Formats: sequence, C-alpha cells, structure tokens
Amino acid sequence: MTPPVRFDTDPGSYRHLRLEIDGEIARIVIEADERGGIAPGYELKLNSYDLGVDIELHDAVQRLRFEHPQVRAVVLTSGLDKVFCAGANIRMLAQADHPWKVNFCKFTNETRNEIEDAGADSGQAYLAAVNGNAAGGGYELALACDEIIMVDDGSAAVSLPEVPLLAVLPGTGGLTRLVDKRGVRKDLADVVATRSEGVRAKTALDWGLVDAIAPPSRFAATVSGRARAAAARSRRAPGGPGVTLAPLRRSAAENAIAYPHVTADLDRAAGLVTVTVRGPGEPAPPDLAGAREQGAAFWPLAVTRELDDLILWLRANETGLGLWVLRTSGDPQAVLGYERLLTGALHADWLADEIRHFAKRTLRRLDVTSRSLFALIEPGSCFAGALAELAFAADRQYMLNDLSGGDPGGAAEPGPGPASITLSAANFGALPMASGLSRLASRFRGDPGHLAALEKRAGTALGAEEALGLGLVTFAPDDLDWDEEIRIACEERAALSPDALTGMEANLRFAGPETLQTKVFGRLTAWQNWVFTRPNASGPEGALRRYGSGRAADFDRNRA
Amino acid sequence: MTPPVRFDTDPGSYRHLRLEIDGEIARIVIEADERGGIAPGYELKLNSYDLGVDIELHDAVQRLRFEHPQVRAVVLTSGLDKVFCAGANIRMLAQADHPWKVNFCKFTNETRNEIEDAGADSGQAYLAAVNGNAAGGGYELALACDEIIMVDDGSAAVSLPEVPLLAVLPGTGGLTRLVDKRGVRKDLADVVATRSEGVRAKTALDWGLVDAIAPPSRFAATVSGRARAAAARSRRAPGGPGVTLAPLRRSAAENAIAYPHVTADLDRAAGLVTVTVRGPGEPAPPDLAGAREQGAAFWPLAVTRELDDLILWLRANETGLGLWVLRTSGDPQAVLGYERLLTGALHADWLADEIRHFAKRTLRRLDVTSRSLFALIEPGSCFAGALAELAFAADRQYMLNDLSGGDPGGAAEPGPGPASITLSAANFGALPMASGLSRLASRFRGDPGHLAALEKRAGTALGAEEALGLGLVTFAPDDLDWDEEIRIACEERAALSPDALTGMEANLRFAGPETLQTKVFGRLTAWQNWVFTRPNASGPEGALRRYGSGRAADFDRNRA
Repeated sequence: MTPPVRFDTDPGSYRHLRLEIDGEIARIVIEADERGGIAPGYELKLNSYDLGVDIELHDAVQRLRFEHPQVRAVVLTSGLDKVFCAGANIRMLAQADHPWKVNFCKFTNETRNEIEDAGADSGQAYLAAVNGNAAGGGYELALACDEIIMVDDGSAAVSLPEVPLLAVLPGTGGLTRLVDKRGVRKDLADVVATRSEGVRAKTALDWGLVDAIAPPSRFAATVSGRARAAAARSRRAPGGPGVTLAPLRRSAAENAIAYPHVTADLDRAAGLVTVTVRGPGEPAPPDLAGAREQGAAFWPLAVTRELDDLILWLRANETGLGLWVLRTSGDPQAVLGYERLLTGALHADWLADEIRHFAKRTLRRLDVTSRSLFALIEPGSCFAGALAELAFAADRQYMLNDLSGGDPGGAAEPGPGPASITLSAANFGALPMASGLSRLASRFRGDPGHLAALEKRAGTALGAEEALGLGLVTFAPDDLDWDEEIRIACEERAALSPDALTGMEANLRFAGPETLQTKVFGRLTAWQNWVFTRPNASGPEGALRRYGSGRAADFDRNRA
Repeated sequence: MTPPVRFDTDPGSYRHLRLEIDGEIARIVIEADERGGIAPGYELKLNSYDLGVDIELHDAVQRLRFEHPQVRAVVLTSGLDKVFCAGANIRMLAQADHPWKVNFCKFTNETRNEIEDAGADSGQAYLAAVNGNAAGGGYELALACDEIIMVDDGSAAVSLPEVPLLAVLPGTGGLTRLVDKRGVRKDLADVVATRSEGVRAKTALDWGLVDAIAPPSRFAATVSGRARAAAARSRRAPGGPGVTLAPLRRSAAENAIAYPHVTADLDRAAGLVTVTVRGPGEPAPPDLAGAREQGAAFWPLAVTRELDDLILWLRANETGLGLWVLRTSGDPQAVLGYERLLTGALHADWLADEIRHFAKRTLRRLDVTSRSLFALIEPGSCFAGALAELAFAADRQYMLNDLSGGDPGGAAEPGPGPASITLSAANFGALPMASGLSRLASRFRGDPGHLAALEKRAGTALGAEEALGLGLVTFAPDDLDWDEEIRIACEERAALSPDALTGMEANLRFAGPETLQTKVFGRLTAWQNWVFTRPNASGPEGALRRYGSGRAADFDRNRA
C-alpha cells in the first residue's frame, strides 16, 4: 500500500525550494532534489517537478501571504545554472495512471492560479526570473507570473515541447495563457507549441512570450529593478505582523480524518464521505488584534486551512469515494459574527483580505473537484454566510423540513431548532467563483431580479419551506421522509458512472461567463484529459511512453 | 470499403423528414425510417437519429432560409404518436468508433447551432412542438429551438438519460443549453441529467425546461398560436422569391474532389489535402436582381456551398489527412466587387443577409475542424475580404515574398504579380467567429489599437513584407526558400500526434470571450470526447456497450 499523499509541509522540510525574504522582496528559488521524487521510479533532473515539488511551491505561496505580510513582490527563479525549470517530470507522467495525472495537473493548475491571485488580490506580484531554459511546465510556471524576465545568453530558450515530444498538451494553462493572458497571436503560439527547441530571448520578446530580456551581466539587476518597481506598485493593505501557519492537527484513521473543526467520515461500502465543518466554539474577538493573538487558531483561518487540506487529501488519496456529503454544525450567528469582524477590516487590514481570498480559493477548489457534492442542511447546522457557500457549491442541496416545528416533543433535552440558511454579504460577491460571479448569481442567471430579492433577506434565518420557495435548496423532505430520501439519493449517485458524473458536473457548475481560470479548467484541462487517454500519448507505442527510449512513437493518423 | 458519406441531399430524397410550407409558417416533421440508417446494424426506432437523419435536418434548415424566404417561423415536430424524438441511436453509438462518434457529434452540434442562427439572424424562429417523449438528443434538439411547447398528457416526459443509462454526456449542447441558454438552476439540471425517466410537463414548466405546456386537446392550437406570434415578431428582410439550391456539381475521384469553384487535391503519402478556392470568373452583376437571375450559380453562394460541402466531406471521409493547405486563385478586385454588391443590400434584402450568414457559418465550421490549417498566399491568389478570412481561420499563414517584384523576367508570359492580402469590411466584424469577435480582433487581442490601424489599410493590396510587418502572416519566405520551407512545414506537421494537434488547435483558435457556441464546442465537447474514450462508457463492460443487453455496466469507481 502506498502511503497517502500529504499536502501540508513547511519551509524547514522543503527538499526542492528555498524561500528567501529581503524586506519587501521575497525569492522562491527552485532547486529540485533529483532523488527527492514523491514516488519512486524517476529523478527530478533539470528542475523538473512532480507533485512533491508543487506541494512545496503551494506552501511557499501560501506562507508568503500569511507569514510575510511585508512582502510586496516575489521573484521566482532557479538555483541551477542555465536551467530555469524543465516542467513536469516526463518519466513520472509516463508511469502515472490516468487519475494520478489528472489530479496532479489539477493541483498544479490551482497553484499557478494562486500565484496570479497573489498578484491580483494580495499585492504580492510574481516575477519569473528565467535564468536558463524554461521548457514545458517550466515555461507555463513563468506564464503564471505577472512578469517574465528572461536571460539573453544566446542559448536559453522558452519552449512548449509537449506536442512535438510527448503528444500531450501544455495543459497547465500554457496554451490558454499564451493567447488569452499574454495576447500572443495564435499563429505564433502555434509555432511555439510545435517547435520542440523553443524560442530564444530576442524572438521571445518580439513575439510577446516574455516581458523583458537582459544579458547575463545585467540580468540580476534587471530582475531586482523590476521587482522593486512591482513592490512600489503594490496596494497590499497594512496591518500587524505575520501569522505563523502552525502545523495542522490532522488525525487520519482507516475510515475517518479529523481536524479540530473539520471531520470526514469515510463510508467505503457506500462510496461516500461525510464532511462536517464545525462553526466557531466561541464568539469572535472584538477586533483584529484579538484575531492576531489567536494566530492560526483564529476560527476562520483554521477552518479554511483544515477544509482546504481535507479536499486535497481526499482528492489524492480517496479516489474511490465519489460522493461528498457536506454538513455543518454550530451556531449560525457565531459564524456571522466572525464575518462581520473581517468584513469591517477589508482593504484596511491584510489579514482580513487574506482570509477572504483564502476562503475564495478553497471554495474554488471545491468547484473544480471531480466528486459529486450534496449538501445536507439539518437542525443544528450553521449554513450562514461563507459556510452557506459550501451548500451553493454543491450539486444539490437537501434541507430538512422539520414539521414538528423544532419542538422536541417527548425528548429529554430541547433540540437545536429547525434547519436554517442565513445569507450575508459573503453570498453576494465577496467569494466569487472563477467565473467572477457569486455562486448565487450563477445559480439564478435565469432570473437576475431574484438576486435583489434574496439580498433583502440577508441576515434572516430562512427555514426549509422558505428556502425551497426561494430556490436556495433542491429538495426539502420532511422528517418522516428525510433518512430514506437521503439514503436513496446517495445510493443512486453511487451507481452512476464516475466519468460521466465528472464531465456532467464540470459543465453544470460553470454557468455564465468564462475567464482565464475557467478556460484552463474547463476547455484546456478537458482536452488534456482526453489527449492523456489516447493511445498516441499513453499507449505502449505512444509518445509519452516511448520518450527517451530512442524509438519514435507510432501514431494512429486518423483525426478525431 | 464503405461508401463515402455524402452531406448533400434534397427534400425529394428525404427518408426521415417532411418539409411542409404554409405561408409564413413551415413545419419540419420528423418520422425516421426505422430501416433507413446510414450504416447497417441498427434500426431508427422511436425517431432516434443517426448522421443520415441529421444530414436531412441540416438540409431542411438551409433550404428554408434560401428557398422559402417568406417563412418566418418553423415548427419542428414528430410524425409519430406520443414520441417526439429518442435522440441519437444508441446501437449506432455503441458500434461506432471514436472518430465517427466525435465527428457525428460535431455535425449535429453545428446543425443545432444553425437552428439557433436561423432565429437570431434570419428571422426564422424555431418552435419545438414536443408531442411526446423527448429523450436525450431529442430533448437537446428541442433545447436548440427558440421555444419549446410540450404536451401535457400525463405521460410525455423530457429527459436526458445519457448519464444514468449510457455513462456518456448530453453532449449535443444539452448541459450547456440548460444552464446557459435557459438559465435552469444547476441543481435542478443535475436532477434532470441523472434521472433516466425525466420530467413530466408541469414540473418541466416549473423548472424552466420548456416554455409552455398544453393538454392534447389544445396542443395544436397552442403551437400554431405561438408560431404565428413568432412570425409576427420576425424581422426577416424583404426581397424577391427564393433561390433554389440546385444539386452540387461534385466529382470525387481517388485523389481529387472537384467542384466548379473549389478543388481538393489529396496527397495520401504526405497526409495532406490542398484546397483551392477560386474567385469569381466574371464581375459581379450590377444589382441583386442580377444575382437572383444567376440563382445558385451566383458566385458567393456557389463557392460557399461548395466549400461547406467539401469541409464536411473531408471531415467524414478523409480522417487520415490531418493537414489542410488552403489556397485561393483569382482576382482580388472581383472578389471585393461581389462583396460590395452584398454589403450594400444587408438588412434590406434577405438574400444578401443569408449569404453573409452562410459564409459566417462555413468559416465557423472551419474553426472547429479538427485538422491543421495552413494558408498559402501566393502570386495569383485572391485573399481579399471574405476569402482572406480563410487565411485568418488557419493556424498559420505563409506568404510568398516575391523578391523579383512580380517581374516575370525571362518567362514567356507575364506572371500574375506578387502575392497580396486585401482587407475589407468582411474582416472587421461582418463574419464573426463563434466567440463574437472577428478573426482579426481575436488575432490581435493583445494589441487592440492595431485593429484600428489595420482598418485604415482596408482596400489596399498588401504585399508580403507589409503583411508580415502588420502581423497578418506568420512567415514570408522569399521565392528561393518558398518550396523548401513549405515542404518542411508540412512534413513536420504531419509527423506530430493527431490528437495532440486537435487539442492544441481547439485551444489556440479561441482566444477571447466564450459564448454558448464556444462552450458547447470547447468545454462540453471536450469532456464528451474524454468520456467517450473511458472504459466505463465504451469498454466491453461499459454502459454504452452493455445497454439493452440486460446486464448492468461494471464501473471502475475511481474518480479522475
């Protein structure tokens, strides 16, 4: 049995990166440990990466935002001579099964989006200092940065050799970012993506593939000059010192994963996981100084970190559990109390901003998760504000319509009262999907006036019949039918084809406009998944499997 | 050897449809001939369709626009009792290989887009009269109409049973049109797309799946009332009588397909087709009355019909030829003369409108064609206006830079003069891509000001160096290098993986905004292609192969 993949790490444990802080400027230096692959069977030569390298990169990006609030520009570069990054390790891809490849690409795509998010939303712009060859995923990593500065040494090239060498796509955003982010002409992008040797500095600048070039003698000065300029443009909010992201407290047993505020119960026979997110145990502190005292234990930060880690854990380690049942428990008013504290400090305190954007990213992670998501809204739950977004991210919402009116009848203790949903500002734009729309705006695209009506109900605890009438939930069975209806719904879902559900959900969840992010996950990733399954790439005679063997791939020439 | 698929037909040859015209209202009545499948091995029961049925539907939609200009609303219905349409024939899908399935889905998607285009751009709105069960592709066909009227007889249902019964997607636009066109809530769409028995009339109306319902006794009157109302809203331009779409004159030999204005030379050894589009043989008539006298022989209509047919022919019958080299020959000024005639009559004469929209659709067909497209711009070519769009649709543009200045030197006859590109209004919005952008606007997204500069050059014959400088072409080799450079480019292209190229081109060609059409072709189709390759659908134990066998599919439960 392979050990589970763990997505939590810390700089002291890095094997592939160095994180260097110098006032407003940070440097992430990639120097992959060749023998540090997360799985056996390949060496991470030439700064090629695997999931393990990307886990460290994700951690570094995240820590810079929370632990180093003074940083206003980040230089991403390589510790190797004449090599920036060779992209995803090819032998790793060749030996990986299809779900691993897809999951690996999803996580790396999410991390590249985090890099763009840091520049756009947190005032930490990234600069790729391309000090040598940037091939495939290496150039795609640079493309995710806000600026690309390339050394002009007569030999360094940027390239996307996936199509010519491996018969797969530059699927970590490369094709999309070329034409959509950088506005590179599609014919030039076509040349770049079919020419295995790539493009040297002067042509790269002419074609818009990089933003600046410099000879080796002026490269470091050019990079640091542009980093200082980026830092000067930053609109990062002020605030106190950084918050240390203390190690997560996670216990993982055979059928349960537990954190202080989040638990997952794994039902392997039924093929489902029940995820329960708990509201805060105590009221919000009066101000952000109080939040800082709590540090990583501050409930909104702690619960988001735990949920984010759980999503990654389940996606990588529990591929056989295709349905996630999302529940909450706690006091809705306490949830909203924390939200009020943070909302009051938005744009004025970096910590409030960072927690909001982190919650946004975690919810987006859920949006692109290839699992069916059912939300169960029951008595004692706290689907309020940001936690209500969990329900709206789900494919369906079931809400218990407690006909006894919350009256516990003959029970020994009073019950928690009927199930409710409470809307807040968090549901009307503060936590947008990758499309730019709030989940409610996406949900009610067919009836735009309805959003304004819902906004008027913000702050009110909406019961099951009202929520059903307002379209916030799919079904509202009463307490007599609840157990049976949920059981049947879960069984029916578990009987369907996992692939068909993944494809269906990836389409239904993204009504409305497409953006760079949705195009990467919807269009490019879908094509990459398809190409990965084709014998021309992954078959025994395919290019991915034959790479480095000295034998050319045998292609089926028919176009589909 | 199977006979080639022919996409040209006429109402006298229909086996599956009836076309009925009654003044402003037309009816397309589907009554599929069970034994009329385009391939052996299945029966078209319950108005299920295959490519042959869809070829007739495409023909009917096209003829209504050109041959019946008085029609202002079209009722699409079934000639069977209690059955509207059962969708794509499942046994056909189960026995088809992957390229056939993908190509079939592409054509059916294009035809559904033509239905929407007829309502939006030609004042011929479609009304689906759902007189009985509409399942899968049957309901998707209704979704492509402007209105859906459903009989409320206590038994008829609309359904999307692809996921639960077949482990594939409602990939003919169904998922996208539910949430994006109709604004159906994603959770309700999820229920519809996972419930094999579907939804009856009252719920269908409540959930927004249809626009109106009527009991059997009032169904016909409701449909005809709404058809009359749609006709009254039509803004179809006036003009003369219809133009009969005479049979295409196509000759198909082993290595050549020829029409009067379009030829294709098939080089099977090199894996490529050279497509040559010829400009008009004589100047444009002075007015549209002159065009009407020429009828289907009128050059802009004739050349578009031939090119459209050729694209479909090559896509279906020549899957092994992965590169299309696009050439033109003729007089650019003559091309622009026809364009001026038509542009002067836009919105005032339906024929001018129809020819423009037909050219737009044919170019969009090229955009979604899974073949590499190289344009060769040579002396004697006529890449002007609409024909220049052929070049801009291509993945690359090669233009011969004739350093001899067009001087034929010692040649016996004077040459045609140097290669040129002439821009016109056709290149700045008259023939938009599915994204809504012109091909030049999409090409120069990174430099919006450049578009205005180009517009100022409209009407001027631009030579190779100028075109290269303006970014209109990728490369401009001189006459010494031309043959060698083109040969190498074609050989290199032919050596690459067909699947990787398809995926790459499908991403690079669609920079900029996504629309319903681009989402159907980019997001939904890509996921469908992937699902089609997965063993859970198409493997020996998959749902598509086991459907109707009495044995349930065996699924690999891992989520990718």
